[in-house]
Amino acid sequence: MTETTTVRPLRADAVTGWDFEADVVIAGYGVAGAAAAIEAARAGAEVLVLERTGGWGGAAAMSGGFIYLGGGTPLQKALGFEDTPENMEKFLLAALGPGADRAKIHDYCQGSVEHYHWLVAQGVPFKEEFWGEPGWEPPADQGLMYSGGENSAPLNTIATPAPRGHLPQMQNKVTGEKGGGYMLMKPLTDTAESLGVRAEYDIRIQRLIVDDTDRVVGVAAKRYGKPVHIRARRGVVLATGSFAYNQQMVETYAPRLINRPVASIEEHDGIGIRVAQALGAQLAHMDAAEVAFFADPQMVARGILVNGLGQRYIPEDTYGGRIGQATLNDQDNKAYLIIDEQALEAANATTSTVHFFRQQPPASVGETVAEVEDEIGLPAGTLVSTVELYNRHAAEGVDPLLGKKPEWVKPIGTPLAAFDLCNHTGGFTLGGLKTDLDSRVLHVSGEPIPGLYAAGRCTSGICAGGYASGASLGDGSFYGRRAGVAAARQD
Amino acid sequence: MTETTTVRPLRADAVTGWDFEADVVIAGYGVAGAAAAIEAARAGAEVLVLERTGGWGGAAAMSGGFIYLGGGTPLQKALGFEDTPENMEKFLLAALGPGADRAKIHDYCQGSVEHYHWLVAQGVPFKEEFWGEPGWEPPADQGLMYSGGENSAPLNTIATPAPRGHLPQMQNKVTGEKGGGYMLMKPLTDTAESLGVRAEYDIRIQRLIVDDTDRVVGVAAKRYGKPVHIRARRGVVLATGSFAYNQQMVETYAPRLINRPVASIEEHDGIGIRVAQALGAQLAHMDAAEVAFFADPQMVARGILVNGLGQRYIPEDTYGGRIGQATLNDQDNKAYLIIDEQALEAANATTSTVHFFRQQPPASVGETVAEVEDEIGLPAGTLVSTVELYNRHAAEGVDPLLGKKPEWVKPIGTPLAAFDLCNHTGGFTLGGLKTDLDSRVLHVSGEPIPGLYAAGRCTSGICAGGYASGASLGDGSFYGRRAGVAAARQD
Repeated sequence: MTETTTVRPLRADAVTGWDFEADVVIAGYGVAGAAAAIEAARAGAEVLVLERTGGWGGAAAMSGGFIYLGGGTPLQKALGFEDTPENMEKFLLAALGPGADRAKIHDYCQGSVEHYHWLVAQGVPFKEEFWGEPGWEPPADQGLMYSGGENSAPLNTIATPAPRGHLPQMQNKVTGEKGGGYMLMKPLTDTAESLGVRAEYDIRIQRLIVDDTDRVVGVAAKRYGKPVHIRARRGVVLATGSFAYNQQMVETYAPRLINRPVASIEEHDGIGIRVAQALGAQLAHMDAAEVAFFADPQMVARGILVNGLGQRYIPEDTYGGRIGQATLNDQDNKAYLIIDEQALEAANATTSTVHFFRQQPPASVGETVAEVEDEIGLPAGTLVSTVELYNRHAAEGVDPLLGKKPEWVKPIGTPLAAFDLCNHTGGFTLGGLKTDLDSRVLHVSGEPIPGLYAAGRCTSGICAGGYASGASLGDGSFYGRRAGVAAARQD
Repeated sequence: MTETTTVRPLRADAVTGWDFEADVVIAGYGVAGAAAAIEAARAGAEVLVLERTGGWGGAAAMSGGFIYLGGGTPLQKALGFEDTPENMEKFLLAALGPGADRAKIHDYCQGSVEHYHWLVAQGVPFKEEFWGEPGWEPPADQGLMYSGGENSAPLNTIATPAPRGHLPQMQNKVTGEKGGGYMLMKPLTDTAESLGVRAEYDIRIQRLIVDDTDRVVGVAAKRYGKPVHIRARRGVVLATGSFAYNQQMVETYAPRLINRPVASIEEHDGIGIRVAQALGAQLAHMDAAEVAFFADPQMVARGILVNGLGQRYIPEDTYGGRIGQATLNDQDNKAYLIIDEQALEAANATTSTVHFFRQQPPASVGETVAEVEDEIGLPAGTLVSTVELYNRHAAEGVDPLLGKKPEWVKPIGTPLAAFDLCNHTGGFTLGGLKTDLDSRVLHVSGEPIPGLYAAGRCTSGICAGGYASGASLGDGSFYGRRAGVAAARQD
């Protein structure tokens, strides 16, 4: 209780002294905070970033580094892919779930090429090389990849497929020292520093400070357990990340993620959301979650995935995040990969960066489908029936059930194996504060809360129920910039 | 904007005069409001109910009237069903979704028998007759029914099946004049009136009034477009219903319900949630929804339901609300009922109260499964494969895939028909304000908001992702009582 009761706003007249002061105060030095810092500084503000950990980076620096960009970026063009903002928008509206913020998606697609140029201008490197195989990440330092199921059924029939997963060129891929996320965050924070942005570390925000008109004028925080008060002359930007590691919030809002938060850092405790809620902030899509599927995409595409009833449910060659969401949300988190010896060998012969997904032994190996079905405990006859139907069509190279691309459709022969991929999911939350296109935090009344801005995963961005890799670093950096500009201008 | 900006709290010192005044002011005269009114009056408070429409009743009076009660109620016992609070709790924890409020479910189950006695003491009549057929409602004035899939797979293996759908004995079933909901609300509001509870109609609440310590001391409202101010000396109870008819909130929180709100009244605009959010109230399970499935349960149980891939996905003899949720949430709202001539005739020969669900003509009638499969546009071979597997097991009277009870398992013969039940769902929202066991509205800090109480569908009650018919009138009346007591005592 003590921990949480502190989220109530503090009145400025109760503050006896300010420990730090700046025009724009930013909480969190991940991608949204860094982008906000750069743009606030460029707009003429004195900027202070408060970071809870001992260094910059946040979840972004630990991530693969995908940034979802399109509409005809120079990288897309150089690699021969056609795309338009309209085509990208069509895709995102279909992929990101009903109820997604249409205005934000439109805005994001219209601004995507400009945002690419901005990232390059800050020093983010993109290598002109495309990686076209199924996978979570490219095997080396390739710069472009499909990262949302754009070229798979059913989305490939809704919008013209174009890869939009833009990856900062990593260094030392093998040792992993400078991955895509690092190569995004390093230039951004270098740029911020060159613009005079200050950062104070080991500061955990506790509550917002408001004046007698309810305008946000600062942040109350703790440093090594002691209270510190930071005055923001123009505005506060919240960029504190998701609530994936706040167990109570996950139970209350996104219970499917109970006990399976991943792909973010433990600092993601929802504090930015809670301090704003205490001011009457509106929320959005609190149940939404990115869901990774822990399985080698090369294997998955070459086999068939069946649920606990032995039925196929998703084209196996689509984006792993779509498989993860479908498995966790709609299939009771039950999945088995059925793959024959030949396909397994072909998968193992491919280059992949995610070898650890292959270490699990099969749950069953058999000479017949019936044998495997029985051994993994599927209802009698279900898997046999599923494989029979799949093989009948696969013999003609088609998949009328789910539209897997012909290149991945081959009859399942013998011997074959089943891998138990039940509960092989985990993810991070996508819901959060409702913000407008200027990243102003909206009150439940619909009006902006004066002096308060937010971006990144403490906000509900472009995603509602769906996801594409790169959407978080994408909308975090895009609306982080907006937050910095708006806060500096006191919009 | 004008409509919504009014939700910000109003300071009491800005109120120039009070139009009404009472110890406890209750917003909404549905089941939660009526229960709160009764208990607040009994606790010695002067009570005023503000109702937006021209009369008492709310969504409750328009509903079928199910109240979810168990643990060994006199009605259960009289009809030969064994149940315990622990058994009921086991069921609800399994049925109502991960993340459900465990403390509330425990509390509700422990208090359920007492709550039955309370309802009877207020004059709510329950007829000692059980209705055991699949259906949304009994055909006549029976008092007890399965209403949550208690006796169907997989829940029948998790807790000992017991019917818990308690129905107030209706009158004039044929004309529908005095349905179960009416027969619940009439005695409750009569009781309230006899206790001196006053009600003012045509009053729409706009915002809460707080004193300078942020304690809730009243309600600002409108009557015929003119502002009225109501002072609450002890507390305000919000009992304003769901947000199913607030399109913006549905898009933001529960987008699967876009364009399909039903089973509640259009007054359900989420106002109680929004005025409390403006004070920093915590929310819970905002994506959760009850989902009705518009199909005759007698037909459904006798046929098989398949999704858009021609696969079965749920035991067809379970509670329709489970079918609705599974269809809308997990099957892209696609469902086809496959039923043979003989089963259709058997269904049509049964007594059912929901004849209008039968008026739709079949999408296809054929002599073979392949013919029907083709005509309704399922992927080639899928329905044939599904029926073949189903029939193979059905010949032995079993359903190893989904566990439909043997009495409903019969091979599907010819001729057969398919009914297109895609988009045959609709429902109301279950998410809302987070309250404690005394129905105090909790601030995001975890502390109660002084002077503010809530119950019914503007709160998150016992349901998270799942549902059982009667859960809303059940927790609405149960926690409505608690709200009345707590508000009267200023707990």
